[in-house]
Amino acid sequence: MKENKLISSVKEAITAAGVKDGMTLSFHHHLRNGDYVLNMVMEAVAELGIKNLKLNVSSIFECHKPLIEHIKNGVVTEIETDYMSGSVGKAISEGIMEKPVIFRSHGGRPDAILSGESPIDVAFVAAPTADPMGNCSGKYGPSACGSIGYAFPDAMAAKKVVVITDNLVPYPLVDYSIEETYVDYVVKVDKIGDPSGIVSGTTKITRDPVGLMIARYAAKVIEHSGLLKDGFAFQTGAGGASLAAAKFLKEIMLEKGIKGSYALGGITSYLVDMLNEGCFEALMDVQCFDLGAIESIRTNPKHMEVSAQRYASNYYKSSCVDSLDVVILGATQIDTDFNVNVHTDSNGYIMGGSGGHSDTAAGAKLAMIVAPLSRARLSIVVDKVLTVSTPGKTIDVLVTQRGIAVNPNRPELKERLVKAGLPIVDIHDLKKMAEEITGVAEPIKTGDKVVAKVMYRDGTCIDEIKNVITK
Amino acid sequence: MKENKLISSVKEAITAAGVKDGMTLSFHHHLRNGDYVLNMVMEAVAELGIKNLKLNVSSIFECHKPLIEHIKNGVVTEIETDYMSGSVGKAISEGIMEKPVIFRSHGGRPDAILSGESPIDVAFVAAPTADPMGNCSGKYGPSACGSIGYAFPDAMAAKKVVVITDNLVPYPLVDYSIEETYVDYVVKVDKIGDPSGIVSGTTKITRDPVGLMIARYAAKVIEHSGLLKDGFAFQTGAGGASLAAAKFLKEIMLEKGIKGSYALGGITSYLVDMLNEGCFEALMDVQCFDLGAIESIRTNPKHMEVSAQRYASNYYKSSCVDSLDVVILGATQIDTDFNVNVHTDSNGYIMGGSGGHSDTAAGAKLAMIVAPLSRARLSIVVDKVLTVSTPGKTIDVLVTQRGIAVNPNRPELKERLVKAGLPIVDIHDLKKMAEEITGVAEPIKTGDKVVAKVMYRDGTCIDEIKNVITK
Repeated sequence: MKENKLISSVKEAITAAGVKDGMTLSFHHHLRNGDYVLNMVMEAVAELGIKNLKLNVSSIFECHKPLIEHIKNGVVTEIETDYMSGSVGKAISEGIMEKPVIFRSHGGRPDAILSGESPIDVAFVAAPTADPMGNCSGKYGPSACGSIGYAFPDAMAAKKVVVITDNLVPYPLVDYSIEETYVDYVVKVDKIGDPSGIVSGTTKITRDPVGLMIARYAAKVIEHSGLLKDGFAFQTGAGGASLAAAKFLKEIMLEKGIKGSYALGGITSYLVDMLNEGCFEALMDVQCFDLGAIESIRTNPKHMEVSAQRYASNYYKSSCVDSLDVVILGATQIDTDFNVNVHTDSNGYIMGGSGGHSDTAAGAKLAMIVAPLSRARLSIVVDKVLTVSTPGKTIDVLVTQRGIAVNPNRPELKERLVKAGLPIVDIHDLKKMAEEITGVAEPIKTGDKVVAKVMYRDGTCIDEIKNVITK
Repeated sequence: MKENKLISSVKEAITAAGVKDGMTLSFHHHLRNGDYVLNMVMEAVAELGIKNLKLNVSSIFECHKPLIEHIKNGVVTEIETDYMSGSVGKAISEGIMEKPVIFRSHGGRPDAILSGESPIDVAFVAAPTADPMGNCSGKYGPSACGSIGYAFPDAMAAKKVVVITDNLVPYPLVDYSIEETYVDYVVKVDKIGDPSGIVSGTTKITRDPVGLMIARYAAKVIEHSGLLKDGFAFQTGAGGASLAAAKFLKEIMLEKGIKGSYALGGITSYLVDMLNEGCFEALMDVQCFDLGAIESIRTNPKHMEVSAQRYASNYYKSSCVDSLDVVILGATQIDTDFNVNVHTDSNGYIMGGSGGHSDTAAGAKLAMIVAPLSRARLSIVVDKVLTVSTPGKTIDVLVTQRGIAVNPNRPELKERLVKAGLPIVDIHDLKKMAEEITGVAEPIKTGDKVVAKVMYRDGTCIDEIKNVITK
């Protein structure tokens, strides 16, 4: 005989949850660049005069630009996140925060939260559908986003959990993701997000000839890696070249009649098609990238939602990344030791983050970077990356349009690919090839202030990001 | 790149998990009286010479009789459980253990485990289907039992988790219940249980005229309680009279066109029929009682598995019992203060336990006891129950074939039922009616040794069970 958990406004929920100066609030990013929830909570918090908060957000997008004012006003004084793009990343790089941002990976974040290393006082769950006791899902409702996998650790570990929804349904929500046992309060609002920002209509394969060439090489590397056989497990990103690689891989799998086991990660319509055409037995989905993926997770029992910890944990007894055969990943820079930077751009500005990069690289038998040899007249391959996001020892191969470099710690892989007639090149030679066109880049000059720390998935600090020098 | 978790025998798993003298091992009871797993583990433990163990078992059945030898030999020196029937209960009652058994409820057990009050060193999960990384389910395989809801807290909180299966499938098991993040080892054995003991073919409605009369009254009480309207939430047991009450309730619901929200608990084919005929929107299932329930949970997305904590927790932020309107429960004795005994029989022997009795009674708006006025020539209604399993303040009404007694703390309910023309009787008068036929029973004489303690769902001790005096 407990009453339901409905509370009439975000502000009242903040008060009921006991939010006070110095606490840690958490948010997840499945509503992506259409998210209204972080901003509406932070606006209410600021109005209530609460200060000195730490935010733990699975990713930060351009839509979260109002955070900059909250930082300047002392409402927010610490941030932990896995990924940060747009204006907030730029402002952080310019040094607006006193304390460095803590970057974690998509597996490191749930581990830190659930192990107690990074405790959360109040978690706010943006829920496209919820019932009055807090059972909630991302699969249904006008703001449907599909999986809400990154919100699980927050809900499980936070002292107080507030579910914010724009689609309240009668108890019990049957196909729930996060269950009532974890939820304290439920708030119904008009809209939790802008559907056009939550998902792109469809993610698109690259049409760029360089991207297509890289994708063809990537598919060939997988074909000849010795891993492409029945039971094959795969992850790829949502970038144009990664999707193109999946398309070429699909053709090979269909032609050879190979039945993979599962595809993992952020899920796109391309992977849904591969599931439906029999390339995989299952999709394991921590985040949906497009409408096709949302429709699939809602209707196809083989398309499973997984929590952040089940996706990529290093702390739990195993996670899905541990059974991966191949992952295709991007890079802003890669150095001759195969260390990869996905945090900072060519001017030193924060424009991304690990996401699942280092987790999948560590878990997969074959971790492949796909990248054009140069971008914006700068070589992708450098002597030393500005920021180490993923350690080189976990990266097996770099695929560019001018050739494929295999990590020297994988001689058997190199042998296979040479035998297959693929253009294998030493990574130092790739660097030279690029620099013959682009010239040797000036080293990026950064300031002395540490604006962010990059924590590896095991919780150790693998790099620091310094402020940019503005003119 | 973690290897799979397969280990070749139960004995090796015990060693790998580091089982040592004095540790706590846990088991769940979904294989019911067909369970082989507890016995096979304990036999191996005994062979390894390990002693002084505490067992935490969600329920103990006749098939677990070999435990008696393990107790006598000092292998097992402490037991926590929610229910204990058959030979083990008898032996405990006769005083074979030095330390009292700790009885908890189905909600109190997960709470004690997950809050850290009752830690588990190694949990053994009997899994009708599992993959090599430990994702497992009860829905599939030759030993399918449906829900494995009671195993969730064990898997989530134990330091080490061993999954024992007789149906190993390729990774990933898509429709899993307990996930790999919690599992350390997976053992494939020939058989985890005897299907004929795991489920009865079908649970049966009573044909006894007294039982049917009680069931009709029970359905009438619900009909006139003010709670039977759209959104109605219901739990009933698998006893003959409880099932008959569900049958009569179904007729009323269909006739009146009432759409309930959910039925909860151990699920039978009768509740599955009610789901399929539109009486409920969902079933929430912590344990399947028959083949029809297993088939339904496997195929009908509206038939959900729930964990023990989601079923009945008092420690978490809410559980399914909190939203119940009506629960129908049994009793071996009920006293004039409405305290109920479901632990001990008329000779003082342990023959049951709370299960979800006290949890649902506390959660439901209307907790109803159905029982014949007398059993084995003894009145069901007594001055004082031998064992308090469920406190009288949480029981609202007692339904017998000779009349219906309403708890004096529910005057508005009494008024409703009187108005409906139901035979409302003071509980003291029910006792008199019974004793006019049975005579006044001799009080049960027990010994001085505390053989078990009954912990209420909040973890406080509400009663102690003394040894029986054997001749």
